[in-house]
Amino acid sequence: MGSLTCKGFSACGMAAGIKKKGGLDLGLLVSDRPARVAAVFTRNRVQAAPVLLDRQRVRSGTARAVIVNAGNANCANGPQGLAAAAAMTAAVARALDVPDDQVLAASTGVIGAPFPIEAVQAAIPALVGRLDENGVADLARAIMTTDTRPKTASRNGSVGDRPYAILAVAKGAGMIRPDMATMLCFACTDAEVAAADLQAMLQRAVDSSFNRITIDGDTSTNDTVILMANGAAGAQVRSQLDQAAFQRLLDELLMDLARQMVKDGEGVTKLVDLTVRGARSDADARAVAETVAHSPLVKTAFFGQDANWGRIIAAAGRAGVALDPERLDLYFDAVQMVKNGTGCGPAAEAKASAVLKKPEFAVTLDLNQGAGSAGLLTCDFSVDYVRINADYRS
Amino acid sequence: MGSLTCKGFSACGMAAGIKKKGGLDLGLLVSDRPARVAAVFTRNRVQAAPVLLDRQRVRSGTARAVIVNAGNANCANGPQGLAAAAAMTAAVARALDVPDDQVLAASTGVIGAPFPIEAVQAAIPALVGRLDENGVADLARAIMTTDTRPKTASRNGSVGDRPYAILAVAKGAGMIRPDMATMLCFACTDAEVAAADLQAMLQRAVDSSFNRITIDGDTSTNDTVILMANGAAGAQVRSQLDQAAFQRLLDELLMDLARQMVKDGEGVTKLVDLTVRGARSDADARAVAETVAHSPLVKTAFFGQDANWGRIIAAAGRAGVALDPERLDLYFDAVQMVKNGTGCGPAAEAKASAVLKKPEFAVTLDLNQGAGSAGLLTCDFSVDYVRINADYRS
Repeated sequence: MGSLTCKGFSACGMAAGIKKKGGLDLGLLVSDRPARVAAVFTRNRVQAAPVLLDRQRVRSGTARAVIVNAGNANCANGPQGLAAAAAMTAAVARALDVPDDQVLAASTGVIGAPFPIEAVQAAIPALVGRLDENGVADLARAIMTTDTRPKTASRNGSVGDRPYAILAVAKGAGMIRPDMATMLCFACTDAEVAAADLQAMLQRAVDSSFNRITIDGDTSTNDTVILMANGAAGAQVRSQLDQAAFQRLLDELLMDLARQMVKDGEGVTKLVDLTVRGARSDADARAVAETVAHSPLVKTAFFGQDANWGRIIAAAGRAGVALDPERLDLYFDAVQMVKNGTGCGPAAEAKASAVLKKPEFAVTLDLNQGAGSAGLLTCDFSVDYVRINADYRS
Repeated sequence: MGSLTCKGFSACGMAAGIKKKGGLDLGLLVSDRPARVAAVFTRNRVQAAPVLLDRQRVRSGTARAVIVNAGNANCANGPQGLAAAAAMTAAVARALDVPDDQVLAASTGVIGAPFPIEAVQAAIPALVGRLDENGVADLARAIMTTDTRPKTASRNGSVGDRPYAILAVAKGAGMIRPDMATMLCFACTDAEVAAADLQAMLQRAVDSSFNRITIDGDTSTNDTVILMANGAAGAQVRSQLDQAAFQRLLDELLMDLARQMVKDGEGVTKLVDLTVRGARSDADARAVAETVAHSPLVKTAFFGQDANWGRIIAAAGRAGVALDPERLDLYFDAVQMVKNGTGCGPAAEAKASAVLKKPEFAVTLDLNQGAGSAGLLTCDFSVDYVRINADYRS
């Protein structure tokens, strides 16, 4: 972990009156010079206005700033929503004296509520006035919705004797599967990275982090990950070796945030590292892992600290994957609970019960049919999850 | 609705000590003569021992009895499980003096717990002694697990001046999607129906009832629907007209039970009749309906009586179906809440909030892209659902 600064970047957050409950709800991340930009967006067919705007703008390959609000997703608001997204970036561009299309936008919160563009526009001069190289912690707080903790992470690397930093903030999802919970992540680095490489490296890091805690295509209307590289540190990531080192740091950084997101998932009491192996293909393993990870009965059993392995194998059985029930092996951490599809008895059950009392544990399902494997970071499903989501808009 | 009797059939239930909490847990349904039999089983790859046994036996096209227990699913028990399923039917066959292969079995309860075959065998002579033409209510109670109410239904028809009855009992699932909750239904009729017709009619009735409250292929390890027709009433269902009348009654009967199952779903406080229309195909409509119906965020909003339409359209957007967000219309009962993808404002919201306070309401999503449609009967997701399932085995 490093400090929460990155050369040439400044950030801030403020309360603009968007969240009903008050608190920081408007944030800004700015590079003092044009930065290379890479981005990954939701694959949901319903996309929020800022996502539609950003998709166009990131094609240029460069950006100067990201303006982001919590409390309103600016989604399903029709032409007014698109106009509002453009207007909030225009206000930032004016205050920073940069071209409109160099400013990106992101929003998170309730879908379909009219967007309070006047309040946002009115706040932007003050927001820009707060920009600070140490402002990332405020930015992290400004994008929180049901998160209970701000989420930041940083890593330091070097190219030769030139050190560089990678820094990111994120907000979490309603649960492990960001069903429509508008996961956001903004990352920046003062290293210099070619635009094409930056996009490829971001996609790879997202696949091994945020996409390991979600389901392909099962993204929200607002999911956005943006990475800006401004080169201010003078470290040029070019050689294969330096690229590999940068990729490793970026992977670590996003996985750090992904883990923070799951741990801070709504009502979460258990962090579960689920692995499915021995499948005929990685895709088969992934299908089984997703079905198990999203089964409400499996998740409520985790919450109940119940080593109810029958629910896990029954979920596996409905994943649409050819599997032989009589070959299934199942482990809680290192405790084998099921061998060849049948339970290992009371002694194993007693040991497994102890594992389930831990706040973090591993579940490994071996199909014993091949070399395919997949991992997902998942969580339990608690009474508090329901409470939080039943009351979300009220 | 008719009385709970059907000529030539008798039934009963008793406490055999299988359920930890006590109560009726062993039931029997018997025809006094060979009956034509039709059955529909789970499509889960993991199948309980009685399902594997029954699949073989129903090929003969006839059956005399079904023995069923609650409290233990007899699933994932390996060869001992298969031996136990065969042994429980053999004990019934001996007591009734009929061939072993004319007796079917079903089990429901915890997966992977050793099956208490000795207790079941010991109870069977007493169970057979309790057979009674009015015993169906006891049978319905004996198959309950987390159900709070026994589920029975009957319909009366006639062929010419020959009246006949159709009668059924069912047990419900953990939730609307019988994830692995072992939905069971046993139906009988004293009409005479050709074996091939019986299977086709049962499949049709299941598709329009139990498969409207579940997801294709997303069945449990034990799901079983059995229909026996013994002809004892002397009514022969042969002509197209009589077949259509029988089909209609059977559809009604199973839908009646399906509705009872959803209403009595674990922790359910809302019954939601979800329709997706205007899709390019029925399959597209079905995919959207299933994604919406199973979204935890949509279900918790129903529990919170929150007309959170943003969650519904966001769930639709991730169903993997091509849809145009700007054409979406959404209704709660007759109240239009969304038009062309945007909200209809505070007045509509106020009316929709009143709809969501009702215990039963309809949600209709129109994609405005074609003539495909699908309906699902679904429910909310409550704090009690989590409580019940976190504690299920303890």
